[in-house]
Amino acid sequence: MKLNIAVLPGDGIGPEVIVQAVKVLKAIAMEFNHIFTFETGLVGASAIDKTGDPLPEETISICENADAVLFGAIGDTKYDIDPNAEIRPEQGLLGLRKVLDLFTNIRPVIAYEDLLNKSSLKKKQIKDTDILIYRELTSGIYFGEKKISEDGNTASDVCKYTRFEIERIAHLAFKAAQSRKRKLTLVDKANVLASSRLWRKVVQELAPQYSDVKLNYLYVDNAAMELIINPRQFDVILTENMFGDILSEEASVIVGSIGLLASASIGDKHAMFEPIHGAYTKAANKGIANPIASILSAAMLLDHFELHEEADLIREGVDKSLQLHITTPDLNTKYGHITTTKVGDFIEDFINNPEETNLN
Amino acid sequence: MKLNIAVLPGDGIGPEVIVQAVKVLKAIAMEFNHIFTFETGLVGASAIDKTGDPLPEETISICENADAVLFGAIGDTKYDIDPNAEIRPEQGLLGLRKVLDLFTNIRPVIAYEDLLNKSSLKKKQIKDTDILIYRELTSGIYFGEKKISEDGNTASDVCKYTRFEIERIAHLAFKAAQSRKRKLTLVDKANVLASSRLWRKVVQELAPQYSDVKLNYLYVDNAAMELIINPRQFDVILTENMFGDILSEEASVIVGSIGLLASASIGDKHAMFEPIHGAYTKAANKGIANPIASILSAAMLLDHFELHEEADLIREGVDKSLQLHITTPDLNTKYGHITTTKVGDFIEDFINNPEETNLN
Ligand SMILES: CC(C)[C@H](C(=O)O)[C@@H](O)C(=O)O
Ligand SMILES: CC(C)[C@H](C(=O)O)[C@@H](O)C(=O)O
Repeated sequence: MKLNIAVLPGDGIGPEVIVQAVKVLKAIAMEFNHIFTFETGLVGASAIDKTGDPLPEETISICENADAVLFGAIGDTKYDIDPNAEIRPEQGLLGLRKVLDLFTNIRPVIAYEDLLNKSSLKKKQIKDTDILIYRELTSGIYFGEKKISEDGNTASDVCKYTRFEIERIAHLAFKAAQSRKRKLTLVDKANVLASSRLWRKVVQELAPQYSDVKLNYLYVDNAAMELIINPRQFDVILTENMFGDILSEEASVIVGSIGLLASASIGDKHAMFEPIHGAYTKAANKGIANPIASILSAAMLLDHFELHEEADLIREGVDKSLQLHITTPDLNTKYGHITTTKVGDFIEDFINNPEETNLN
Repeated sequence: MKLNIAVLPGDGIGPEVIVQAVKVLKAIAMEFNHIFTFETGLVGASAIDKTGDPLPEETISICENADAVLFGAIGDTKYDIDPNAEIRPEQGLLGLRKVLDLFTNIRPVIAYEDLLNKSSLKKKQIKDTDILIYRELTSGIYFGEKKISEDGNTASDVCKYTRFEIERIAHLAFKAAQSRKRKLTLVDKANVLASSRLWRKVVQELAPQYSDVKLNYLYVDNAAMELIINPRQFDVILTENMFGDILSEEASVIVGSIGLLASASIGDKHAMFEPIHGAYTKAANKGIANPIASILSAAMLLDHFELHEEADLIREGVDKSLQLHITTPDLNTKYGHITTTKVGDFIEDFINNPEETNLN
C-alpha cells in the first residue's frame, strides 16, 4: 500500500516522540513492502515562532493532500500564563480538527497486564479494563461563539450542538459497541444542560437501530467517579467534546501513564492520529518523553487503512517493551533511565525481527 | 445560640439521611444549650409530585427566613430518562442556589485514616490528602442562556462569567488558603475558553493581595488526572461551576465513598449545607444510605456560626463510627448491615456521652 503521511511534530516533546513513531512506521513499510512517504508541517507554538500563525496555510494543504496526519503535541507554557494572548498554539490543533472535519476522536483505555502495578489504582480495580472513548471533536463549547465585553469584564463561550453532529458520531459509537461488548454509555449533564438533553434525545432515537447494544446514561460528574471505582463496567463511552477531554485524560490513571494513550481523530475525508498527552515543555529534549502514545497512534493509523496485521505487530512490540521494562522514567523502569530513542529503537528492532528482540 | 434551620429533605435517600443530621443537631443543641428550631420545606421531585413546582414559593420563603438551610438530595430516575421533561427536580436545587445567591460551594476532601483501605486508590497515594474545593455555584453554563431551535434539532447553553462573580469567590478561596497550606490552584480551560481566560486574568490580578499564597494553574483535563495520581499536591482548588461539579464528585474516590462528602454553599446573606451525593433513588427506603455526608454537612453548618467546638464533636463522632466500622454497606462494614438509623444513633449517643460510646 502507498500512504502519504503528513507529519506535524508540534511543540515540546512532540518532535521527539513523533520521530519514534515515524521510525516505527518505516520499519513496518520495510517489513510489509508498503510505500510510506512523509511530509512535515509546522503547527502550534513552533509555527507561531516561525510564521506568526499557529496553523499556516501550507500545513493545511499538506494535511489535506495527505492520506493521514500524524500529530505530535501542542502548547507552550509561555502562552499558558498569559490570559491575554490573542494568538495561541492550541488554535493550530483546534483549527486542524475543524478544517479537516475530524468529528470523532477515539481514545482506547486499556489496562496492560504488565503495568497493573504502575497505576495509582488498585490492581483488582483495573484489571481487564478495556474502554473505547468516543469524544465529539469539532463542536460544543470548543467551537461555539466566544465573546468578551468591551471593558473585558465579561466573557462567554457557547456550547451548541446539532442533531446532525450528534448522529454522525453516535452511529460510529454504536457500531464500535456492536463489534465489542455491546454496551454504550452516553455521558452528559442532561439534568442541567439543554445541549445534553439533545444528546440524550438523539441517541435514544438511534438506539432501536442498534437493538443488540445496551444503551445507558451517566451524568458526567457521576461518570468521573465511576471511571475510577468501577472502570470495567464500561465498554464504549460516547460524549461531547469537553466532557471527553476531561474523562479521557482522567482515564489515563487506569493505564498507568498518560504517555501510553493514543487516539484517532476521524472525519469523513481525513484522519489524524495523536497521543492524548500535551507538549509537556518541561520534559522536552531530555530523552525522558514516553514515545509509546505516539507509536500506538501510528498503529491506529495503520488500523484505519485496514493494515491490522501491521498494527498488531506494533502493539506486540509495545507489549514486549513494557514486559521487559524497556520504558521511559514515567513508568519507573527497573533499568534506570531508558531514553525515548531507545524505546523507539527497541520497537523498531522488534518489528524487524519479532522472534529475537531482547534487551540489548 | 438560637438558630432557625430550614430542612429540605428532597428526593430519594434525601429524607432518610437528613433525619439523621437533624437528630445529631438536636443532640448538639441539648448538650450545648442552644435552641435550634427546624422548619421543613418541599423541593425537587417530591415537590413536583405534590405541587407541580420543584421549588414552591413557600419553600423559598422558609429558606429566606431561616438562618441556614439543611438540604438532603434531589433527582428522580423517571426524569433522567426523559430528555423532553420541561419541569425537572434539579430546577429546585438550582433555583434555590440562585435565589439565595449561594455563590460559593465548599467541598472538603479528606482521606480519613480509618478509611484508607476503602479507596480504589492505593493507600500511599492518598494518605494525608486534605483538599478544599471552592466551586462557583450560581453562574457559568448552569445558569447561562439555554436555547432550543424550533425544530428541536439544535440546542445550546452559554457559559458566561463576570469579573464580579469571579472576584467574590476568589477572595474567599485565597483567604481559605491563607489559613491552610497557602496554596491555591485555579482549574480552568484557559487554552480553549474565553470564560476561563477571564478567570485566569482576574485571579492573577488578585494574587498580589495575597502574596503569602502560592497560586498555580491547571487545565481541567490535567487536573482530573492529577487529582488521582497526586492528590496531596492540592490545598485549595478554585474552579467554575461545571468543572467543580465534575472534579468534586471525582474526588470522592479519594475519600472512599461519596456517602462521606459534605458541602457548604455560602452567599452574602444565606447559607445552605448539603451532601454532594445525589438522590440515589435505587437505594431509598432500604436503610443502606450513608448519613455521614449529611451529618458532616450539619457540622459545616455549625462551623458557619462559629460553633466550632460543637462541629468538632460531630466530627469526632463520625471518626469514631468509622474507626469502629459502624458504617453503612458502601463502606463494607465488618459487622454486616448497619442501617442508616443505627449510624445516626451511634453519633447521637457519642455526642450525648463522648467518653463512653461504643458499639451496642
Ligand atoms: C491541547 C488542547 C486544546 C486539547 C483539547 O482540549 O482538546 C488536548 O487537551 C486534547 O485533549 O487533545
Ligand atoms: C443535582 C445536580 C444538579 C447537582 C449539580 O450538578 O450541581 C449535583 O450534581 C451537585 O453537585 O450538587
